[in-house]
Amino acid sequence: MSLVTVGTVAFDDIETPYGRVEKVIGGAATYISWAASYFYRDIMLVSVVGDDWPSDEIALLKSRGVDMSGLQIKKGEKSFFWAGRYHENMNKRDTLTTELNVLADFDPVLPEHYQNADFLMLGNLTPEIQMEVIRQMESRPKLIAMDTMNFWMDVAWDSLIKTLAEVDLLTINDEEARQLSGEYSLVKAARKIYDLGPKYLVVKKGEHGALLFHKDHIFFAPALPLLEVKDPTGAGDTFAGGFMGYLARTGEVNFENMKKALIYGSAMASFCVEAFSLDKIKNISEEELKDRLQAFKNLVHFET
Amino acid sequence: MSLVTVGTVAFDDIETPYGRVEKVIGGAATYISWAASYFYRDIMLVSVVGDDWPSDEIALLKSRGVDMSGLQIKKGEKSFFWAGRYHENMNKRDTLTTELNVLADFDPVLPEHYQNADFLMLGNLTPEIQMEVIRQMESRPKLIAMDTMNFWMDVAWDSLIKTLAEVDLLTINDEEARQLSGEYSLVKAARKIYDLGPKYLVVKKGEHGALLFHKDHIFFAPALPLLEVKDPTGAGDTFAGGFMGYLARTGEVNFENMKKALIYGSAMASFCVEAFSLDKIKNISEEELKDRLQAFKNLVHFET
Repeated sequence: MSLVTVGTVAFDDIETPYGRVEKVIGGAATYISWAASYFYRDIMLVSVVGDDWPSDEIALLKSRGVDMSGLQIKKGEKSFFWAGRYHENMNKRDTLTTELNVLADFDPVLPEHYQNADFLMLGNLTPEIQMEVIRQMESRPKLIAMDTMNFWMDVAWDSLIKTLAEVDLLTINDEEARQLSGEYSLVKAARKIYDLGPKYLVVKKGEHGALLFHKDHIFFAPALPLLEVKDPTGAGDTFAGGFMGYLARTGEVNFENMKKALIYGSAMASFCVEAFSLDKIKNISEEELKDRLQAFKNLVHFET
Repeated sequence: MSLVTVGTVAFDDIETPYGRVEKVIGGAATYISWAASYFYRDIMLVSVVGDDWPSDEIALLKSRGVDMSGLQIKKGEKSFFWAGRYHENMNKRDTLTTELNVLADFDPVLPEHYQNADFLMLGNLTPEIQMEVIRQMESRPKLIAMDTMNFWMDVAWDSLIKTLAEVDLLTINDEEARQLSGEYSLVKAARKIYDLGPKYLVVKKGEHGALLFHKDHIFFAPALPLLEVKDPTGAGDTFAGGFMGYLARTGEVNFENMKKALIYGSAMASFCVEAFSLDKIKNISEEELKDRLQAFKNLVHFET
């Protein structure tokens, strides 16, 4: 088993009611790889940075079992930069700045030893780039999972639909599921989204948890109520990383196993939001992870 | 064991994207009593109606084991009337009309045989009326539960705080928990609300489920994703009715038992929203209830 993950590697400026940080480490592929690395060590990253990207960060991910040979480093160019400010309730944020930089003409190239991976996680990027990565796979992965967002529904509908037809699992938030399907009921939305390609749908609801849909089955993973949510940045990617990392470790692609993967993803996301950037995600002990999983179990377990 | 329930008995006009109904049966005490009657048959209702209230409805509740001797029937007066319209997403509604009628000078009188009940459910009413009911109890119930809303925080803060000091369990929605406590984190909100009196807090999140807080314990009951939500009116009261009905049946007031009560309440609420008014709540078979409880279990159960 191996897991290829594609997505941004970025610098972020983040402002939340808990404070403000500048030029911190971020990006979907970064969060996904870090989170997955707690479950699995054969991860292969595909992304692009400028030569302003700290070599320490590359070394750190390597030390976590992440193959970085698919990371393009563009001489004389700058890494992708995003700045955002969260509202008081943390559910909404304003994007203050987006500097695409190296991402503007990102042309993903999968090293040969990536091309037969069993699991592929397509982080949020243009649907065209996501499709290009699928195209470069020599054999079809056991599972292709894709994250996307409302922005691509607005500006790149046709290529989004084309890419969706190639994937097995889609992760989006509840509003996006409604926009994509035209249905308010998530049960109805799932049925319409199956028709677009994905056999599995994960609906991320932030502080309200996540739902997994497959055929007529539904599973719900709660979000752990936390004392403090300091920075939601990367929570969705961290969730996807934990989810895919667990699937890659176990190698089983079915609804029953995905239930557990959903809980593992939720547990990782709950750590993510407790600190800015990757501060907590880079330092989770085995004991903490075990306790957190137990907390999730306690949260929903009842005797019948 | 016996359960006293206090609240409105009302006519409703309801408009949702699924249709419009006029002068249908509603009111907190109605929904609570009907839902509780699926679990327990020693229920005592306290409320007021005009002589326009259908005697059939009174007879129906009696046939469900609900003592109606605490229902005042005011000659020549009209029952409480509410008209509301739900938005497309069903999470928001506009009140179009509120005619207090008999409720304007409602002075609850507990029949003598009500005054030693073990469980007391105070449906949403002015905090003064809720307090008056507590005052009329001869012996202190094993559990006093209270529902309230943001409106009373805005217009009757002082009496709300006084009443809260006398209750064991508070049910409110997430926005209201935040308004009452001044804390965005529900974990912090719960701690502040304990200081106001309640030892248990139930936070209702509508389509996102419900949380039970007690000391450092948290339990989460999901909402069942439904194909269609036709009318959310009374869902919170139906939830409270199922919750209290289950507690009254089992007689145990503790966190472990309340977990199950929360699931039973959520199951009842999921039936409520599938039809207008009490249409579904009046006709749930044992088989349907059993299947629904199993659906809740399936929704959150995972192997570890």
